[in-house]
Amino acid sequence: MPRSSKTGTNVVDAPVDENDGLIEHYFKLLSNPDNKKPSTLIGKGVKIIPLGGLEQIGMNITAFECNGDIIVVDCGLSFPDDDMLGVDLVIPDISYLKDNADKVKGFVITHGHEDHIGSLPYVLKEINAPVYATKLTMGLIDSKLKEHTFDPPIQKKVVSYGQTILLGCFKVEFIRTNHSIADSAALAINTPYGVIVHTGDFKIDYTPVNGEPIDLQRLGELGKKGVLALMADSTNVMREGYTMSEKTVGKAFDNIFSENENRRIIVATFASNVDRVQQILNSAVKYDRKVVVEGRSMVNVISTATELGYLSCPEGTFIEMDQMKNYPPEKLVLITTGSQGESMAALSRMAANIHKMVSIDPEDTVIFSSRPIPGNEKSVAKVINELTEKGAKVIVQNTHVSGHASKEEMKLIYTLVKPMYSIPVHGEHRHLTAQAELAQELGVPKENTIILGSGDVLEIDKKHAALVGKVQAQGVMVDGLGVGDVGNIVLRDRQHLSENGLIIIVMTLEKFTNRLLSGPDIVSRGFVYVRESEYLLDEAKNIVYSALERCLDNNVSDWSRIKTEIKDSLSDYLWKKMRRNPMILPIIMEVE
Amino acid sequence: MPRSSKTGTNVVDAPVDENDGLIEHYFKLLSNPDNKKPSTLIGKGVKIIPLGGLEQIGMNITAFECNGDIIVVDCGLSFPDDDMLGVDLVIPDISYLKDNADKVKGFVITHGHEDHIGSLPYVLKEINAPVYATKLTMGLIDSKLKEHTFDPPIQKKVVSYGQTILLGCFKVEFIRTNHSIADSAALAINTPYGVIVHTGDFKIDYTPVNGEPIDLQRLGELGKKGVLALMADSTNVMREGYTMSEKTVGKAFDNIFSENENRRIIVATFASNVDRVQQILNSAVKYDRKVVVEGRSMVNVISTATELGYLSCPEGTFIEMDQMKNYPPEKLVLITTGSQGESMAALSRMAANIHKMVSIDPEDTVIFSSRPIPGNEKSVAKVINELTEKGAKVIVQNTHVSGHASKEEMKLIYTLVKPMYSIPVHGEHRHLTAQAELAQELGVPKENTIILGSGDVLEIDKKHAALVGKVQAQGVMVDGLGVGDVGNIVLRDRQHLSENGLIIIVMTLEKFTNRLLSGPDIVSRGFVYVRESEYLLDEAKNIVYSALERCLDNNVSDWSRIKTEIKDSLSDYLWKKMRRNPMILPIIMEVE
Repeated sequence: MPRSSKTGTNVVDAPVDENDGLIEHYFKLLSNPDNKKPSTLIGKGVKIIPLGGLEQIGMNITAFECNGDIIVVDCGLSFPDDDMLGVDLVIPDISYLKDNADKVKGFVITHGHEDHIGSLPYVLKEINAPVYATKLTMGLIDSKLKEHTFDPPIQKKVVSYGQTILLGCFKVEFIRTNHSIADSAALAINTPYGVIVHTGDFKIDYTPVNGEPIDLQRLGELGKKGVLALMADSTNVMREGYTMSEKTVGKAFDNIFSENENRRIIVATFASNVDRVQQILNSAVKYDRKVVVEGRSMVNVISTATELGYLSCPEGTFIEMDQMKNYPPEKLVLITTGSQGESMAALSRMAANIHKMVSIDPEDTVIFSSRPIPGNEKSVAKVINELTEKGAKVIVQNTHVSGHASKEEMKLIYTLVKPMYSIPVHGEHRHLTAQAELAQELGVPKENTIILGSGDVLEIDKKHAALVGKVQAQGVMVDGLGVGDVGNIVLRDRQHLSENGLIIIVMTLEKFTNRLLSGPDIVSRGFVYVRESEYLLDEAKNIVYSALERCLDNNVSDWSRIKTEIKDSLSDYLWKKMRRNPMILPIIMEVE
Repeated sequence: MPRSSKTGTNVVDAPVDENDGLIEHYFKLLSNPDNKKPSTLIGKGVKIIPLGGLEQIGMNITAFECNGDIIVVDCGLSFPDDDMLGVDLVIPDISYLKDNADKVKGFVITHGHEDHIGSLPYVLKEINAPVYATKLTMGLIDSKLKEHTFDPPIQKKVVSYGQTILLGCFKVEFIRTNHSIADSAALAINTPYGVIVHTGDFKIDYTPVNGEPIDLQRLGELGKKGVLALMADSTNVMREGYTMSEKTVGKAFDNIFSENENRRIIVATFASNVDRVQQILNSAVKYDRKVVVEGRSMVNVISTATELGYLSCPEGTFIEMDQMKNYPPEKLVLITTGSQGESMAALSRMAANIHKMVSIDPEDTVIFSSRPIPGNEKSVAKVINELTEKGAKVIVQNTHVSGHASKEEMKLIYTLVKPMYSIPVHGEHRHLTAQAELAQELGVPKENTIILGSGDVLEIDKKHAALVGKVQAQGVMVDGLGVGDVGNIVLRDRQHLSENGLIIIVMTLEKFTNRLLSGPDIVSRGFVYVRESEYLLDEAKNIVYSALERCLDNNVSDWSRIKTEIKDSLSDYLWKKMRRNPMILPIIMEVE
């Protein structure tokens, strides 16, 4: 089904004007009960349907629905919780979008982080709608989609700050913000029922490394005209004060480079933080060092960013890793992945002495230009310990600033936007609650601060806000190529196996007579070290024999009962003897 | 073997005097080559042999050996790393002590935390030597040992601050310190080769809740006379400034109680922090509330501490949980375990709505009087989110202070003790390195700052310090009642099973002919949800059939080759089809 009608022409270069024809047209529709197309007047307001991104920082995706049109803001993934053993990533459940596929007018993406774009390859296979994003964001989406094929091809439109796109009854304006990735945008989502401002992920940086500060003027202008709802990033709302400018990190780099002029410098940071990389390049150039880039995602992002003009440095600054030998260590900077202690990332391999080309020595200075994401503290500490064991100097202080607004910045945004409703997003429940409390302090009535859960259907206009439904919104687990085939039963078994290991008991019985023809054999994995536990396994075998004999003596011929008897007896024995509870799997083979 | 000769009489109440007979006696032995008992003059100094506690915060245990006598300082456990699946705890490898059991004169314990006393029940079964500790520490050891029997019974001696015990050629003085548990001690270990000061875990609290500030005067006096080596707590050496007094938390509690006078208050904290509990009691009494204690370890510690006089409050302050119904919520305080988000702890069960007696509601104020231990951040956040979802107010700020000295306190200790050698302990490698650097800043020569690894044998006297050997010091994993029977192979299997699950293929073959009599049957666990993957498992069965046929057609009759062929074919198929790698276990039964 060709969908070209949906694309291409609906990018409007003119700046938005809230009094233009479209909104008036829709307001007329709404106020005129005799209108010829009543079927387009569905509901009593705009519906906001988060399909993820609440209850957690990750997997951001929110549907907006109005008069039969749907737009989707962001389409991210999340990384598995600790109890999702073996799961690679989690993507949103988009059943609601699939059921309403023909209404979906497009995906509007605020910035290029995985928790905002990572599910696109999966979701676009189900919902082939156009994608709208700023230039760098689209570059990162492109490199993500290039390994996939779509039929028909995905329509994509690069949008500039200040531009507005028309998507059904929605007009979406992209507004410049600052964040830990370039080209981030807030959205002013104009609907017939009012304007919703969605901040995306943002901070306020008066002196950004690239480009301009967040467009506070436009946010103020929107606020002055009246904003229905503000959906703002909650990540750092519990942090007091202001988030520092990215430029402060550049100064720290300069100091470190100057104090370590006789040492090789290795900097680990987030691949996607292009401005951070630019600042490392600046210091490298200033202190006359060559730059080596290591780690697959770092190489990918730097090449995309350079191609699109988001990184600049004199020609010859970058060298390949195999050219390192031609330079003394103090003339080199390595920019690498691994700032989160990920076990297979480049820095972790260097620290563990299993990197092919780089080994750490006491003349190295390693900078972590990052903060551990919650849950990664221990793996980061492990890498730091390995580095210090090899004598390297490790620097972790003043080398990172957050990309998210702290409490005082949130106050500024609320004061500019002055929304009727506050709908905190991008956070765990405690963050959302904290933002709701802040909104109340700043004058939003308590009943107008709304904490949604994923799957909630909120309907709002200027007169009311109500939860009007619930749609499916559990995350879908991806394991290898399997999407959704790992569920709770599988995870429960993995958990059991991981903590206790496994004992398999196999035997062959003769059909009808139940005579034991072979076995019972015992196979164990992840339970005890077999060579040192022969006595235990012999004992176990005796337990199984007795259980089997008891069954046969009592004419129990139902195999499931025999299996249960074996399992219970062995389980009892092991618990009493060892206080352990392995998975026990009795298997009976039948031979005629 | 009765060992009564080792105990009882060797507690000396007199204050230590470094010029007393014993030291002189030993120095004479050392300086007189014609001495009659040359066999007691082993080595050229005192040996320091950490058997744990380096590379990690946990499992503290250090042997000191001199002239054929050994004393052991602390005997802790550690909790398993994330990759030690199913392991309950880790205890030190004490092979060296077992090989030298007759030399071990005693265990000297600095304080009652698990990472300092937790391995005693295991270790004392192997080495039945007397235990020395302060009153509360011994109370906690007693309650730990009471479920065990020892033959002969363990000799225990309660030591007061300022007391000195004679243990072979060692004289050990207990010095008052402050920490997050009462009755903590530093040790001045007098040896013929000089005095070693071991701080234990400590902070400097000028206004402690119970008792006196750390005995800085005595540390100064020792320093003035000359200290061979300082072994100091590295935990917080990377934190700038000073650690705040425990009393500041009491003031915060008072404020919170006053601001929440109409709400029930629940406080989660570390069970062992008796001073913290005392401060909660103080606020409860001041604001006329009854106190309920919940969580097994909290109940145990509070009862031990009350018995020994470390907690005091007016009679009738504590009530049983089932009496809660007789009081309005605003007249109650619950003190509970679960401050680390441990899934089975009382607070976590309340938050998850699975606690039998307590459910959380919007009128509750929950105080976390703790900081997440690294690695627990996510589970703590989970509990906070569950509490806020139920409407509770959660307070996490200003309600905790650390029990470990920050950088400026470390400087004070070094300045008082002025050791010849610095041997940082109680920390990961990065912490030890940071303390060594600090020691250098404060005047310890670089070559005299010594970073040991567990198992290193360091020999020092005033003239030299040298690594003279290495002893076994890997942690021993405890799983249920099994000590050391889970090793790397078992863990590797658990890891594999946890990430990928398991496929078992069973078949029965006829002896000699290898004719297939039954099967192949496929059983899987933790792999895919079987009911939705019948097609996949049928396919898998076909792969197994073909592999078996190929073998039999080619007259392959060696079962291990048949198994390998089946395993490889299926493994290939699943990787190509699903990018997954389950454990595949082919089992062949034989019937005549």
